[in-house]
Amino acid sequence: MNGIRIDALRENMIYPKIFKEIIEFLKGLPGVGRRTAERYLFDLLDWPPERLELFGNVLQQLPKRIHRCQTCSAPKEDTPCTFCDKERRDPHLLCIVASPRDLYALEETGSFRGGYHVLNGLLSPLEGRGPEVLQLDRLLKRVEEEKERVEIILAFATTLEGDATALYIRDQLQAEGIRVSRLAFGLPMGSSLEVVDGSTLSQALTFRQRA
Amino acid sequence: MNGIRIDALRENMIYPKIFKEIIEFLKGLPGVGRRTAERYLFDLLDWPPERLELFGNVLQQLPKRIHRCQTCSAPKEDTPCTFCDKERRDPHLLCIVASPRDLYALEETGSFRGGYHVLNGLLSPLEGRGPEVLQLDRLLKRVEEEKERVEIILAFATTLEGDATALYIRDQLQAEGIRVSRLAFGLPMGSSLEVVDGSTLSQALTFRQRA
Repeated sequence: MNGIRIDALRENMIYPKIFKEIIEFLKGLPGVGRRTAERYLFDLLDWPPERLELFGNVLQQLPKRIHRCQTCSAPKEDTPCTFCDKERRDPHLLCIVASPRDLYALEETGSFRGGYHVLNGLLSPLEGRGPEVLQLDRLLKRVEEEKERVEIILAFATTLEGDATALYIRDQLQAEGIRVSRLAFGLPMGSSLEVVDGSTLSQALTFRQRA
Repeated sequence: MNGIRIDALRENMIYPKIFKEIIEFLKGLPGVGRRTAERYLFDLLDWPPERLELFGNVLQQLPKRIHRCQTCSAPKEDTPCTFCDKERRDPHLLCIVASPRDLYALEETGSFRGGYHVLNGLLSPLEGRGPEVLQLDRLLKRVEEEKERVEIILAFATTLEGDATALYIRDQLQAEGIRVSRLAFGLPMGSSLEVVDGSTLSQALTFRQRA
């Protein structure tokens, strides 16, 4: 009750119009509510005009300077896609990820040097996101053309959507006789058994590795 | 050790240049580290170009559209300062705050209708921030000119810097025979005694109010 009254007050806040505009944009960022947006705004108010000018510029340039690679859909600047450079990447491995973010998370590990394919989403029967939205036909065509690939690695989250997407792609590719693997399920590094949930522990047992 | 290695990897991340640029700006926001900045960046990557264009524009317009009121230093757009409008505000009260943020926090309560004076900082002997940085002479001159003020309210944080600033201003103004008050110390609303720290409890006892 009190919370509602206070929120109503906040909405009617006598902020200058541009404060409200900036707060609205900031609230569009993930996990940013009104409080955090106001905190950011008051910080921005102290930034030198030149810095705000540059910040505004790079935000506006983002969609102009970043393109999606025609082959793997990874974001890239005007240079050729580094992930599709077969001189510098292992041409035998192809890793399929849901988003650019996941691609960079894998790159960060330094453990993978193959190529990528970014789906920009996962299948979601609940939200009506089917194979056509993810352009899975384009993926299948690519795998068919790139005969040098000996293994396709599915790197999806261990969620309902991740599982659905992995199953669908695996079935399609295995029908073509292609070797498909998925990231291992198991214990996160540094975790003790008592803090890991039961289904993770059960998977870790099923897929136990030779010591 | 491991943390350092991973951080070094992250810094050398093969992000497109504009990703790194945007991450650097985002890291300038309060409480935003590398992880959060990356999260915001990947979200921005999905924003429509028109929205990024508008967002960039308002950021660039912020310093152009917002000016500080010559009298009270509150941020305002081109219109006259609403806080200095003596027709609509109680001309007898003047509240001194450290920042625009604090001003809006007080406005939000709906409990104060007097005028404001924004210092843009607090005295800090440790950081060498003295009375001249806060233009306290300008404040004293203003109070001297505005004869109609019957009470000056100091609304500072209950920190070392807040205390230092309050003491300094109180001494200066009281020497001129002006009534000076400070926000009450005491229990936050809705808190039980056992969760309140000892010094707050002690202050609440000292400044106990007639029931």
